[in-house]
Parts: sequence; C-alpha cells; structure tokens
Amino acid sequence: MKPELYADLFRLVRKNHPLVHHITNYVTVNDCANITICAGGAPIMADAIEEVAEMTGIVGALVLNIGTLNCVQVGSMIAAGRKANEMKIPIILDPVGAGATRLRTETARRLLEELEITILKGNAGEIGVMAGADGKVRGVDSAGLTGNPVTIAKEFAAQAGLTVVVSGATDIVTDGKRVLLVENGHPMMGGISGTGCMAASVTGAFAAETDDPVLAAAAALAAFGIAGERAAVSARGPYSFKVALFDELSGLSPEEFITTAKIRSI
Amino acid sequence: MKPELYADLFRLVRKNHPLVHHITNYVTVNDCANITICAGGAPIMADAIEEVAEMTGIVGALVLNIGTLNCVQVGSMIAAGRKANEMKIPIILDPVGAGATRLRTETARRLLEELEITILKGNAGEIGVMAGADGKVRGVDSAGLTGNPVTIAKEFAAQAGLTVVVSGATDIVTDGKRVLLVENGHPMMGGISGTGCMAASVTGAFAAETDDPVLAAAAALAAFGIAGERAAVSARGPYSFKVALFDELSGLSPEEFITTAKIRSI
Amino acid sequence: MKPELYADLFRLVRKNHPLVHHITNYVTVNDCANITICAGGAPIMADAIEEVAEMTGIVGALVLNIGTLNCVQVGSMIAAGRKANEMKIPIILDPVGAGATRLRTETARRLLEELEITILKGNAGEIGVMAGADGKVRGVDSAGLTGNPVTIAKEFAAQAGLTVVVSGATDIVTDGKRVLLVENGHPMMGGISGTGCMAASVTGAFAAETDDPVLAAAAALAAFGIAGERAAVSARGPYSFKVALFDELSGLSPEEFITTAKIRSI
Repeated sequence: MKPELYADLFRLVRKNHPLVHHITNYVTVNDCANITICAGGAPIMADAIEEVAEMTGIVGALVLNIGTLNCVQVGSMIAAGRKANEMKIPIILDPVGAGATRLRTETARRLLEELEITILKGNAGEIGVMAGADGKVRGVDSAGLTGNPVTIAKEFAAQAGLTVVVSGATDIVTDGKRVLLVENGHPMMGGISGTGCMAASVTGAFAAETDDPVLAAAAALAAFGIAGERAAVSARGPYSFKVALFDELSGLSPEEFITTAKIRSI
Repeated sequence: MKPELYADLFRLVRKNHPLVHHITNYVTVNDCANITICAGGAPIMADAIEEVAEMTGIVGALVLNIGTLNCVQVGSMIAAGRKANEMKIPIILDPVGAGATRLRTETARRLLEELEITILKGNAGEIGVMAGADGKVRGVDSAGLTGNPVTIAKEFAAQAGLTVVVSGATDIVTDGKRVLLVENGHPMMGGISGTGCMAASVTGAFAAETDDPVLAAAAALAAFGIAGERAAVSARGPYSFKVALFDELSGLSPEEFITTAKIRSI
Repeated sequence: MKPELYADLFRLVRKNHPLVHHITNYVTVNDCANITICAGGAPIMADAIEEVAEMTGIVGALVLNIGTLNCVQVGSMIAAGRKANEMKIPIILDPVGAGATRLRTETARRLLEELEITILKGNAGEIGVMAGADGKVRGVDSAGLTGNPVTIAKEFAAQAGLTVVVSGATDIVTDGKRVLLVENGHPMMGGISGTGCMAASVTGAFAAETDDPVLAAAAALAAFGIAGERAAVSARGPYSFKVALFDELSGLSPEEFITTAKIRSI
C-alpha cells in the first residue's frame, strides 16, 4: 500500500473523532480512554447489559478486552458484539491472558465463534493459543510460540476469516492474504502496564474510519509505535515514558507519521 | 459575593480535609481520588451495598457519578444518597452520558426524584437532557443544547430545587435565583479523560465545608480552572498537562486563588 | 540481618520477575500493576471466581486488598487464598479501611481466619483494629492507635502467627520475635492515593522470592521508600512526584539500594 493511504486514514481519524466503545478491564481502562483521545478518537466505556447495545449503536468501532474478565461481562460483550455485527462496524478483540486460564481461553474462543470479529490482536503466546498452535503465556505476557508466527497468523486469519495482529518487536498484521510487518516501537513500551490494551484502542479508532482492517491495524500500530520511539528519547524511566507516550501520539502529525512509519509488505 | 468568601471556603477545605465519598465509574476513579487530595479533601471510594450507608455516615459530601453505571451500583447510590439526605450532607450528581442511553437517562432522573440532590453538574448536553430541553450528547461528550443554557439551567434549578452547574468554556452555576459564571479553565482540560469527573470531586470537597452550594461549586470550578490554566503553561501534550493539573491544584494557595479567580454574578 | 541479604533478594526479584496475582480495588489497581513491574515483578489482576484459583496456581505471591470490597470479591479472595495456601506461596493482605465499616472489618477478620495469611500490612489504625487494640481509622486513613504500635504489632504477630507490617513514617515489620524498623520514605508518599496499596504490591514481589516474610517486607518497604526519597527531590507537586516514584523504583539498583536502605533491628 502507498504510504499516503496510511496518512489519509490518520487524517480522517483526526477529523472525525470516531467514537470507540470499549468493554475492557479495570486495570488499564483509563489509559485506553486517554490514548483513544490522543489518537484522535473519542472513547466510551460502558459494560452494563442494559445499555451496551445502545452504546454500540452510536459508535464507529467496538473494542473487547478480556483483561479482567468475569461472567457478567461476557454477556455484555456478546450483546454489544451482536449490535456491532448488525451495524457492520468493526470489532477488535484483545484476548488478554488467553491460555492462562480456561475462562479466558474459552471466552476468547466463544467470542470468535459467536461474533464476527474484525481484528484479533494479541501477543505471540495468545495468538498461538487462539490458533490452536503451541502458544505459551506467562500470566498475561507472551512466553513465545513454537513455529513461525507469520505462518501461524496468516493461516489462522485465512481460516477464521479475520485480520490477525501479533504484537511484538515487529508487529504482524495479516488477513490471510496480505501480510504487513510494522517495525515501529520501542522496548520501553513493554516496561509499563497497558500498552497492549492501548494498541487495541488506537486500532479501534483507525478501524472506525476505513473498510480495510489490515490498513487500519498497520497504521494504528505504526502511529502508536512512533509515539513510543519519540517518548523514549526523553524518558527518565517507565512512568515518564508513559506520560510522553500520550503526549507524542497526540502531537504526531500525519505528515511526520508518513516519514517515520515502518510498514512493509512481505 | 465577596472574593474573600471564596478564599475562606478554600482555606476551610485545606484545613479540615473533608472526607468525600464517591460512588463513581472505574475509568477516572483514580483521578477523582487524587484530585480530591490535591483540593484539600480526603477521598473514599466504596460501592458495596453492604457498606455504602456506613461510609456516607462518616463523610462531609457524597459524589455520585454514572460514568460506568450498572444496576448493582444504582442500589448503592440510592442507599448512600438516603443516608446523605438523613445527615443533611450535600450530594453532587454527575449524570455522565445522560441522553446517550435509556439506562443513564432514567437512572439520572430516578436519582433526582428519589434523593435530594444538592448539586447537579453536567455538560450542556447532559443538563439539557435532564432539564427536558433539547440537550444533545455524543457518547459522554456534549453535542450542545438548543436554547440559552443560562436560562435553561436557571429554570431547571428553580423547578427542581437544587444547584445546577453547566460545565463548559464558561461554567454556569445557578440555584434558580443567583447565577454565577466562572471563566477560569483552559481548552487542554477537554483533551484528557476525566476532567468533568474531577470537577465534581473538587466540588464535593468544597461543598462539604459550606451550606451554600452555589458558593461551593463556583469556588471549586474556579480553583480547578486556575490549576488548568497554570498547567497549560508548561505542558508538552495532554498527559504532561494532566500531571501538571494535579500539581498546580495542590500548590494553589487561597491567596493566589483570590487574585486569579474569574467568578462573576449576572 | 546483613544488608547483603536484602540486596540479594532484590537481585532475585529483578532476575526472576515473579508473577504477583492481585485481587484488589479498582481505584489504585493500575498503580499496583505498574509498581510491580518497576520492582521487578510481573502483575496479574484477575478476580472472577471461575479463574482465580487457576491464576494463583501459576504465580509466586498473592496480594489481597479490600479497598473497594464487595461480596463477590470475598468469595474470589477465599478461593485464591486457599490455592495459595495449598501451594505454600505467600499471601499479603492489605485490610484497607478495616475499622471504617463492618463489612471491611469482618471481611478482613474472616480472611485472617480462613486463610493462612503470610503478611498483614496496614496503617496504624487498621492494624490496631485487626489486633483488637484501640485502632482508629478515618475513612481509609489511619487516625492513630492508642498504645505502643511496636508492642501491639509484635504481640498480634505472635498470636496470629504471621508477619505484621505497620506502615508509617517509620515502618514496623515483625513476626512476633524479630522486629525491624524501616526508616526510608518521604512525606510526599502520603500526598497521593495508592502508596499503601503499592507498598503491598512491592512486598508481594519480594515475598515471592524468599521464605522469610520479615526480610521480604523490610526489603520491599526500604526499596519503595528510597524511591520515594529520590522522587521527592525533583517533584513539583504530588503527581510529578508519583511519576518520579515509578521511575526511581525502576531505576534503583541493588547496589544503590544497599547503601541507602535504613533497616534496623530492635
């Protein structure tokens, strides 16, 4: 894809401020709200079964994150997800900790079965678990994946009919046909809680403004990764890095984005 | 009112550290806790039906915020609110997202009916919805209000027998007779999640130390707004602004407050 | 104990990144996650009854914090706690607000009865309440303790068969035989929400790597306190202090730790 396409999408996000409905964990939810704003979107967090479908009815994208999953939340995710499918707006699923417990693995699988998920984003371990490959997780962190992650992601995307994102030093984005690698980012992003969740939020904001989830995910991850690279320059530790991460994403212009994004097709 | 009255109230908050009980959303709850401390108060967050009335029994003010409302929480809000009414301590209601879903609109109305709310604080859209005027909300953000917000707020305050605060570039505070406009603040306050919720927390701390809710709300919003103005000076983006917002409110002296507060009666 | 023992423990934490399972409040949970990482550990937050025992099954320590307690959570704490006892991994209990409401006092007592708690960490008021001494709390803050806190903590630790930590300007750590005083820390730590919760998280990470809970608690509190001392140097207010607190703990080396830790035996 031409770099200009990514920048055009970024400009749309900044112009339209798409609403992104999150049903997410209570650990990083504030970070998700703020990073959505910094990307150009507008966050909504709501998880009561009585209102989730109504909230989803007014937004541009739905982000489902199972980071502090409970049974009540699953019902709300299904209800919101059905509404999203009905409205044909994208759903981003972040299967945090899939593989760590039966509840998480089974819920993530159930969401994939009962809903048409647009983008499944996880670390290598989580995606490996979801793909039925040999994914390993350590709590909510990846402990790696036996086999070639690109191959596994590509095959799983093709089989499940969705876009798969494997986050890591190099992010993999694939819909089973196209494979994009995103090489932006910085190791300090792994030194704070919530960067994975935030990446899904940014992806939600971008996905709301295009019909191409591969383009959306790659552009979102590149933008977020560039913010991380810039934040690392002046950070004196993980929390000043975190502060700068938000500032840098907010201050990133589509023009700067285009000259620093490292997205390549393989 | 004389400026000295506002400063005296601020001094009382700083001296007495009033306890402020919050039943609030899980998105901005940490910000609410910290801003309460920075204002001079002491936050308590508790929402279990088994303990809310007991907690309310020891505090100076109760803040109810429906930002991530669910049905269990409504029962706790009613129970805590009844206790607050019994004790004659002020209740601040922040009807976050009223108008966006039926659950939120109906719950906010129910709280207004079943409890004696002291201060209702919302954006123009939310207050419009609550007043039965043509309020518009976009998720949890205001999308404006047809008509004159001062007139709508004043009439609604008179009719409902409470103090209404309409937050915005100029905040409106009215009890149906008096109308105060607060012109402190900075646009960067709209660039992060949670400033609306935080304003309600600061208002709670101030309301705990006076019988005059109009005075309390105006002084609280001015103090918070001044902190925003000062924070904007050195901020490099929304999150360093957020860090500075807390620092500045904490460091604001009643003497500085009095010379920079822009509160006028109309 | 020799200073080298504390530094060796710190090195182990930094090397092994122990998983610390938290069932905690939704106010300071993000701070707990990030401070665990800064200490060298890896946080897991999970509270659904369906998965808590499984999560506890893979971690090095369990932290239970009743800061926003509800009835559902109590069941999860018991289930996770039983698993921890079965696996003989340490449990750190932070009885936030014990004494403020019946629910909190009774739940904290029930957890002490039904589980083998390794370390009970609270402020003077909370520990006084738990010990049946004349503890006073004001919301979730200590309002002091009649009597000698060292004596009360020591006797309670001996009687209950656990390690008691009384946080304060000087922290007290005792198992009923040994008494250690930790004199690191800074008053600014009391100016933000969550430092008590964070101290329990750091203690969890340290306790995961040793069989000696007295050593673990003292080392953890010293490390956290040193980070506070360093953070205060450049802080312009409570929130820039908070940012620096994380940065400083993350950057603290075991070598610097050993030269600045103020732990003494009495």
